[in-house]
Amino acid sequence: MDNYLVISADCHAGLPNPEYRDWLDPEYRERFDVALAERQKMAELAQHGFLNEEFAEAWHAENEEGLRGGWVASRRDKELDADGVAGEVIFPDADAVTSGASAPFGAGLGATGENPPELLMAGARAHNRWLAELCADSPQRRAGVAIVPILADIDAAVAEIRRARDAGLRGGILIPPMWQPYEPYHHPRYDPVWAVCEELGMPVHAHSGVADKASYGPHIGIYAAEVRFWSARPLWFLIWSGVFERFPGLRFGVAECGAFWVNDLLWRMDLVYERDHGSQKLGEQLTSRMTMRPSEYFDRNCFIGASNILHRELDRRYEIGVGNLCWGNDFPHPEGTWPHTMAYLRDAFRDIPRDETAAILGLNAVPIYGFDADALAPLAARIGPSPEDLGQSGDPTARWAGLKAAGRPWLTGIELAPPALP
Amino acid sequence: MDNYLVISADCHAGLPNPEYRDWLDPEYRERFDVALAERQKMAELAQHGFLNEEFAEAWHAENEEGLRGGWVASRRDKELDADGVAGEVIFPDADAVTSGASAPFGAGLGATGENPPELLMAGARAHNRWLAELCADSPQRRAGVAIVPILADIDAAVAEIRRARDAGLRGGILIPPMWQPYEPYHHPRYDPVWAVCEELGMPVHAHSGVADKASYGPHIGIYAAEVRFWSARPLWFLIWSGVFERFPGLRFGVAECGAFWVNDLLWRMDLVYERDHGSQKLGEQLTSRMTMRPSEYFDRNCFIGASNILHRELDRRYEIGVGNLCWGNDFPHPEGTWPHTMAYLRDAFRDIPRDETAAILGLNAVPIYGFDADALAPLAARIGPSPEDLGQSGDPTARWAGLKAAGRPWLTGIELAPPALP
Repeated sequence: MDNYLVISADCHAGLPNPEYRDWLDPEYRERFDVALAERQKMAELAQHGFLNEEFAEAWHAENEEGLRGGWVASRRDKELDADGVAGEVIFPDADAVTSGASAPFGAGLGATGENPPELLMAGARAHNRWLAELCADSPQRRAGVAIVPILADIDAAVAEIRRARDAGLRGGILIPPMWQPYEPYHHPRYDPVWAVCEELGMPVHAHSGVADKASYGPHIGIYAAEVRFWSARPLWFLIWSGVFERFPGLRFGVAECGAFWVNDLLWRMDLVYERDHGSQKLGEQLTSRMTMRPSEYFDRNCFIGASNILHRELDRRYEIGVGNLCWGNDFPHPEGTWPHTMAYLRDAFRDIPRDETAAILGLNAVPIYGFDADALAPLAARIGPSPEDLGQSGDPTARWAGLKAAGRPWLTGIELAPPALP
Repeated sequence: MDNYLVISADCHAGLPNPEYRDWLDPEYRERFDVALAERQKMAELAQHGFLNEEFAEAWHAENEEGLRGGWVASRRDKELDADGVAGEVIFPDADAVTSGASAPFGAGLGATGENPPELLMAGARAHNRWLAELCADSPQRRAGVAIVPILADIDAAVAEIRRARDAGLRGGILIPPMWQPYEPYHHPRYDPVWAVCEELGMPVHAHSGVADKASYGPHIGIYAAEVRFWSARPLWFLIWSGVFERFPGLRFGVAECGAFWVNDLLWRMDLVYERDHGSQKLGEQLTSRMTMRPSEYFDRNCFIGASNILHRELDRRYEIGVGNLCWGNDFPHPEGTWPHTMAYLRDAFRDIPRDETAAILGLNAVPIYGFDADALAPLAARIGPSPEDLGQSGDPTARWAGLKAAGRPWLTGIELAPPALP
C-alpha cells in the first residue's frame, strides 16, 4: 500500500500586513502607510458581532506557531508535512480571521472592480514578488498563484502574467470573481488575458470571498447562503460565451466554493444546450458560439478546487467527473482541514476507491499545475497518508458500481433505484 | 382508487396586450398606447436569434384555440379539465413566447425596480381588476395572484393588497424578485407589506423571469444557467434577517424555479446556523434575529411552486420536505406540461407513494391558498388523474424507505449506502 501523493489545491500565504511595505514599488509606500492605518480601524469596527472573538482568540492561541507558516517557509513545510501534504497551490491572504496577512490595498481574495485599479496592481505586484521568493525556496512543492487584477488594464494584466510566470509562479492567476462595474467576463476585451494564460499554461482561478456585500446589511447569514454563487459565476459566463471554444487550452478553476452544486449545474446546462422541453423556445444565439455541450467544455477546460470536500459531495463525483475535482486543506485558514487533515480525509474518503482517492487528493492537480509527481514521490512516501490512515480497508469498488455506471444519468439514461435502508 | 385532486400552483393568465387598455385608469391610457407601439417594435428586434421562430410558429399553430384559455374563462376550464387540473393559482402573463398577453407597462413577471413605479402600479391595478373578474367566474377553482410592486411606495402596495383581497384575489401577491436599486428585502421598510400579507393570509411569491440581464450580452445560455438564483434569492434574505420571526404567519413561495437546489440550500444554511467547522468564526450577528434553524423557518413559512417537477427533483423530496412542494402545469406556457400533463406526471410520479403524490399534486396547496378541497372533490373525481393514469401500480413504499428514514441526513445522522446497480 503506497502512501498517497497529496496536493492541496487551496493553500494561502501572505506576509503580516506591515511587512508588505518593502515589497511595494517605492512610490506606493506612503499610500500603503495610510491604508494600513485605516484598515486597522476598520477591522476594529468590523468585529462587533461579525466575528466570534472567543473563537478567534482560541484559534490564534492554539496555533500561534503553525500560523507563522503563512509566511515562514520552514514553518510552512513543517505544517504541511504534519498534514500529509506534499504539494500546494498557493493563493494569497494567510489570515482569514482578522485579515492580518493580506496582500496590500485589498488586492487579494477580496479584490473587486471598486478598488482603485492602480493600487490593486501595485498590491498584486508586491505580493507576487514575495510569493515567487517563497516558492523558490521549494519550487517542486509550491505552485504559487499570481494575483492579477484584470479588470481595468488588460495590457498591464498580460504583462504581469508574463512577469509572474517568468518569476516562477506556475500556479496560474487569481482574478477578481466579480467584474462589476467593468464588462462581464464574456466580453472579448478579456481575450488577451485568456490567450496569454493558454499560451503559458497558467490556469485562471476565481476563489471564494467576494459577494454582493452591499446588499446584506448586518445579515452575515445571507452572505454565507450565497457566497459561492459569486465566485462560481464566471464558469458559466466563459462556457456559454464560447471562451473555451476560442481558447481550447485554457483552464479555469473555481476554488473553495465546494463541489456540491457542480453536478446540477452541468445537468441543467446540458439540458438547455440540447434544448430540452423547457428551452425549446430559445433561438440559435443559444449555442452559436459552441461546438460541444457544456459538460464537455467543463471536462476539458474547467476544474473544481473543492478544498475541504465532504462525503456528501463525493457521492456526486461521477456526475461532476472524478477527474475534475481537486482537494485542498486551505492552510492556514480555520475553515480548512489543517491541522487535523487526517480526520477530515478519513471522514470523506473512508469508502472511496483508491484510484479515485489518489486522483482527487493529488493526481488531478499534477497536470493542471505542472507538478513533477516523480520528484515529489519520496516526500509523499514519507509524509503522505496511507489508505489505512484514511480508514480504507477492503475494496469499495462494488459499493459504487451503480453510481459509476450511471455516470451522468442525463447522458447515459441509466436510472438507479433509490438507496436502500441499511 | 380515487382520482387525485390536482391543483396547479403555477398557471398564468393575461389579456392580449391591447385589451388591457380598458382596465387601466383613464389617465394612463395615452401612455399605454405609446408603450404598446414601442413594445411591438422591441419585440421585432428581440427576435433575432433569441427566439426559435420555427418553434414559436408551430406552438401557436398547434395550440391556437387552447391558448385563448389564457384569457377566456370557458376555454380555460376546458383546457384545465383536459389536463386533469381542478384548481389553479394564477400568475400574470399568458404568453411566454412573444409576450403578447402581458400586464401593462411590464408590471408582470418581468417587473423590476427600474420600471417607472407609477406605471408599474397602474399596470398592476389594471391586471388585478381583470384577474378578479376571471376568478369570480369560478371562484372555487381559481386563486388569483395579485401583482403588487412593493418597491417604491409601501403604502400604495399595502392598499393594493387589501383592495385585491377584497376583490377576491386569494392567491397572494407577486413581488418583483429583484429589488435593485431599492433596499434589499431584509430591510424593515417592507415590514408593512409582510404584516398585511400575514394578516390577510396572502402568500408572497417570487416567480422566475427576471435576472441580471444587463450582464449577459447576447448569451442567453448565461441567463438560463442562473435565472433561478435571482427569484430564489429573497428566500434566504427573509430567513436570515428574521422576517419569519417577526411575521410567523407569513408564507413565502418561490415559483417556477424548480426544486433541485432546495435541499442543498437547507443543508448549507442549517450547517452555517449551527456554526459548523466552516462557520465557527462567525459572530453573534449570524443568528441574532432567529430562534430556529433555517430549515425550520422553511418548513413553517416557505414553499416551492416547482411547476413541472422532475423525477430527479422528487428523489430529493425528503430533504426538501414533502409538504413544501407544489406542482404546477404552467398553463399556458410552452415550458410547462400543458397540454400533455399526463405524460409528464407519469414520468415524474410513476414510483412515488400515493399519499406523497396527493400532497405534491394538490393537497399541499389547499391550506396555502385557501382552496376548499371538499368543494373541488366532484370536479377532481371527474377530471383528475387516477394512480393508474400515472402508472402507479403496486406499493412503492419500500422502495423509498431508506430515503424517507434518512430524511434530512444532516439532522438525522442517517447515512445510506449509494444506490446499487439494477
